[in-house]
Parts: sequence; C-alpha cells; structure tokens
Amino acid sequence: MNTFSKKLTDAILTKKTPAMVGIDPRFDSIPEVFRRGVSPDDLPRVARVFHRFSLAVLDIVAPLVPCVKPQSAFFEAVGPWGMMILADVIRYARERGLLVILDGKRNDIGSTAEAYAEAYLGRHSPWESDALTVSPYLGEDSLLPFIHVAEKRDAGIFVLVKTSNPGGGMLQDLRPDGETVYEKVAAMVEQKSAEFAAARKEKYGAVGAVVGATYPEQLAELREKMPHTWLLVPGYGAQGGSAKDIAPAFDADGLGAIVNNSRGIIFAHTRKDYAGRFGEKDWELAVETATKEMIAEFR
Amino acid sequence: MNTFSKKLTDAILTKKTPAMVGIDPRFDSIPEVFRRGVSPDDLPRVARVFHRFSLAVLDIVAPLVPCVKPQSAFFEAVGPWGMMILADVIRYARERGLLVILDGKRNDIGSTAEAYAEAYLGRHSPWESDALTVSPYLGEDSLLPFIHVAEKRDAGIFVLVKTSNPGGGMLQDLRPDGETVYEKVAAMVEQKSAEFAAARKEKYGAVGAVVGATYPEQLAELREKMPHTWLLVPGYGAQGGSAKDIAPAFDADGLGAIVNNSRGIIFAHTRKDYAGRFGEKDWELAVETATKEMIAEFR
Repeated sequence: MNTFSKKLTDAILTKKTPAMVGIDPRFDSIPEVFRRGVSPDDLPRVARVFHRFSLAVLDIVAPLVPCVKPQSAFFEAVGPWGMMILADVIRYARERGLLVILDGKRNDIGSTAEAYAEAYLGRHSPWESDALTVSPYLGEDSLLPFIHVAEKRDAGIFVLVKTSNPGGGMLQDLRPDGETVYEKVAAMVEQKSAEFAAARKEKYGAVGAVVGATYPEQLAELREKMPHTWLLVPGYGAQGGSAKDIAPAFDADGLGAIVNNSRGIIFAHTRKDYAGRFGEKDWELAVETATKEMIAEFR
Repeated sequence: MNTFSKKLTDAILTKKTPAMVGIDPRFDSIPEVFRRGVSPDDLPRVARVFHRFSLAVLDIVAPLVPCVKPQSAFFEAVGPWGMMILADVIRYARERGLLVILDGKRNDIGSTAEAYAEAYLGRHSPWESDALTVSPYLGEDSLLPFIHVAEKRDAGIFVLVKTSNPGGGMLQDLRPDGETVYEKVAAMVEQKSAEFAAARKEKYGAVGAVVGATYPEQLAELREKMPHTWLLVPGYGAQGGSAKDIAPAFDADGLGAIVNNSRGIIFAHTRKDYAGRFGEKDWELAVETATKEMIAEFR
C-alpha cells in the first residue's frame, strides 16, 4: 500500500498543482438554490443542504485539484445529521479520486487520542480520511497515538505549528530560550516525520505541519528547518495570503506543501473581486473559475 | 436564567461534593452483559452498547454527583451512530439533573470556533451541554468565539492550562520570561473569567481551567493566581492523583474546583483494589461504591 506522502506526491503531480479546496459549508453563504425554504434551525434539512452543496462542489473541483479539506466544525454544528452527511462527503471525495484531509484539530492523551485517530483515520470508520489535523498543546505524548494510527493506516496527520490568525502568536511566538514555541513544535514534528520518511526511504514523512500563509518569513524558515515535513498552508485568499507569500513553502521540485483556500473557492460567487462577473446563479462557474485562477497563480 | 457558575455552585452544594464522573465508554472494559455477541467493528451495535451502558451509569451516579463529563472521542470513534447516542446521553444526564461538561478539546479560529461552540453549547444543538473543554494553542482570539457563545447561552468553557499527562510539560512548562506558557494561558483565562464574574456580581466566571491532579503544586499556585476561575481537575484515581493532591484546588468554602474520575468509577469492577470485592456481575454496586468512596475521600 502507498504511504500518505506517496499518495500526496502522486496526486499533486497528476493534477499539476498543490492547490487544495476547503469544504467549509456556511449556511448563509451557500447559493440560494440549495437553501430555498429551509430554516437555519432545521438541522436535518440544513444537513441536506450541506450535503448537496458539498457534493456539487466536489464534482466541480475533483478534476482540478489533488485534495480537499472538509472543516469538521461546520458539519458538527448540524448535529448528528451533519456528521452523517460528512461521512458521505468524505466517501464521495475519495471515490472521485481526491485525497481528504479532515480539519478537526483533535487533541487528547493516551487511549482518548487513539479513539480520535481511529474515528477519522481508522479503516472501520465511516469518516475514514487520508489525514487529520491535530493540535499540540498537550505535548509530544499526545501526538504519538495519532502518529501510531497514521503509521498503521498509511494515513497522515498535520500538527498545528504556526497558525494564520493574528492572535496565534500569543503562545506560538513565545521564546523560552532563543527558540519560539512554534519552533519547538516544528522540531518535534520534523523529527517524527524524518523517522517516518527514513523507514520508508521517502523524502517526506506522514507527520505534516500547519503553517499559515499569512507569515511568509516563517514559511521560509520552517521549509528549511523541516526538510521531511509536508506543510499544509491555510490563510491563502480570504485570510490575506498571496501567491508570492506562499512561494517559500515549496522545495526545489515544487513539492512539500499544499495550499488551502476555502471561502475564496466554494463561495466564489460572493467575492468582491468577482462582482459583476458572476451572479449567484453562476455559482458553479465561479467555483470553477476561482479554482483555475488559484492554480494559475501558483504556477 | 442562572449563569453556569451559579448552576455549578448550586449543584455542588446540593450534592455536597465536587466529585464528577467521566463517561468514557471503552468497549473492552464495559461489563460483558452489555457486550454479549457484539463485535467491536459493528459500529451501530457498539453504539447501542455505549448507549445502554452510559444510561445505566447515569442512573447510578445521578443522585450522588453534581456533574458528568462525557468524553467525546469515545463516541466519535463509533461514527455517526456514536454521535447520535451521545446526544441522548447528554439529554438524559440533564433530565436527571446533572450538569454536563462535554470533553471535546475543540479549538479553531473565527467563525469555525463559533461553529464548534454552537455545536456543543448552542440551544438548537442535540448535543447542547452546560460546558465544553477547549484547547488554547491558537491563542486568545481563538478562545473569544467560545467565550462569546458561552456568555450568550449561560454556559461555560474549560480551557486546557496544565494537563495531567507526563508530556504536557513539553510546551506548557516552557518559561519564556520568568513565567511558564501555562501561567500565561492561566492569566488570560483568569482575566476573561474575572470580567465575566464582575459583570454578574459573582465570585467565579464561566471561563474555567483544566489543571491536572498529578501536579499538586501547580494546583495550589493556580488556585491562588486564578481567584475567579473554576478548576476542572482530571487525573484523579486511575492517573495517579490522590485526595491529598487535589486539596489545594479548592477555595476556603470548599468551592472553585470539580474533580473528575472516569475509569476508576465507571469501570470500578475492573479495579485491582476491588479484586475479590466485586465481580463483573456486581458492576453496578462497584460503580456506586466507588462513587461514594470518592465522595468520602474528598470530605
């Protein structure tokens, strides 16, 4: 079986782009054709809206990009109905040949962390994804169960290192001894991923890092310090990161990073820079155009 | 409507104990009478096992303790079926007069954090709980959406500050400038909770802190530095914390903290110190005895 890193490399080379689309269904932004007559408090019907919209987006982007990143929070906000259709969204994306990185930022210790890992990376799980995002506040021993399950399943994890939000620095930029907190997390991630890579004689391991597009200097620094680590770069587009900002995330072969855009793609019909170009009824064309433009910007 | 702090104070005074029971269903530890003939891979049936077992535990502990803490990970590991019965476990606990603190350690930014908060504290959610645990790596701006929803719903949040696991210190004990990372998180939590408390003329606010029973010195230190903050203390019992260890978590009135025990209560029939005293068929008596003994130890 292929490792996660091999699958990701192949998918990027096949689609000729490291662009990733975030599946973040927000009720108010979804085109009216899906929402008509549905109250936002009517959870089973909201789940149906999310389901149809997400599948329609996947139909458009599946031929264009190597992977998608569903944001678990938006599905959880629709209760058990949201979690049921999340399973089908993941399944459908994988059937269409997309890799699925579930953005759940899970974290805990021991057998509890293992339960999370099995929930989202386990072979018996209806939510089985190719990778899961995790949050590192609980320290190295909280990451090991996720790494262990990822290893067993040929899946990946992406650990939050340097996040794209303005307040992320509060903890992450603290500098205990010449090295920031995020550099310490980065060093731990790189070590685990290097072990992973060495064991499989590959360039990159399956323990990735989340590093925001809004901090281009840190992207360059971390690319250099983490030669065996895939970077998942959020914050492109709506959050302010530009194509120039993300360039330092890549290695000499143009690999080593995937760049996410959520709102700027799936709700492209609401983009200010698209005003007059696409109306709500053209939402599909807007999604396709935005995806192709993002891909072109990266080249 | 009562604030979370008022509800928690009342519940503790009514039950005359700060003891809390963790609802962590692990398939292999559940008494055989519930599991008979069910394969651990058969998720819908595992969900039924978890459902019946959790409700039976709630029947035993509801008259004895003020609150319970379901661990979301174990329910998520059972897929959408697990999340469906989690809704009923939460609902049943609240019907029985228990406060429910959902242990989900969620974390994200902006509208994504708000989606998590609405999922677990929102009035329309099938998982509506009295409080939710959250993880702080993304910084202060990632906590504000949770605090905002908690404020609106008279609910609470508990932020990870100093966790009970051995590796927790890797990040949390780093000392950038005379103050550790966990002290910085603690200061932020205390400030938010103090504002909350002042606005409602109460002693404690609704932004709590998770501080492990395995670090009694830090418990004492944080109790002093966080006079407006409820402490949620895990790590008692199975993880090694003793009644003496947790004493410093309380204020002069014996309030300000709640202490969790999961495995040591719900799987009391498997405890080594109960060997010969309770067999598997006496599991209910073991749960009741363990709960009463924990309460007695605290007094």
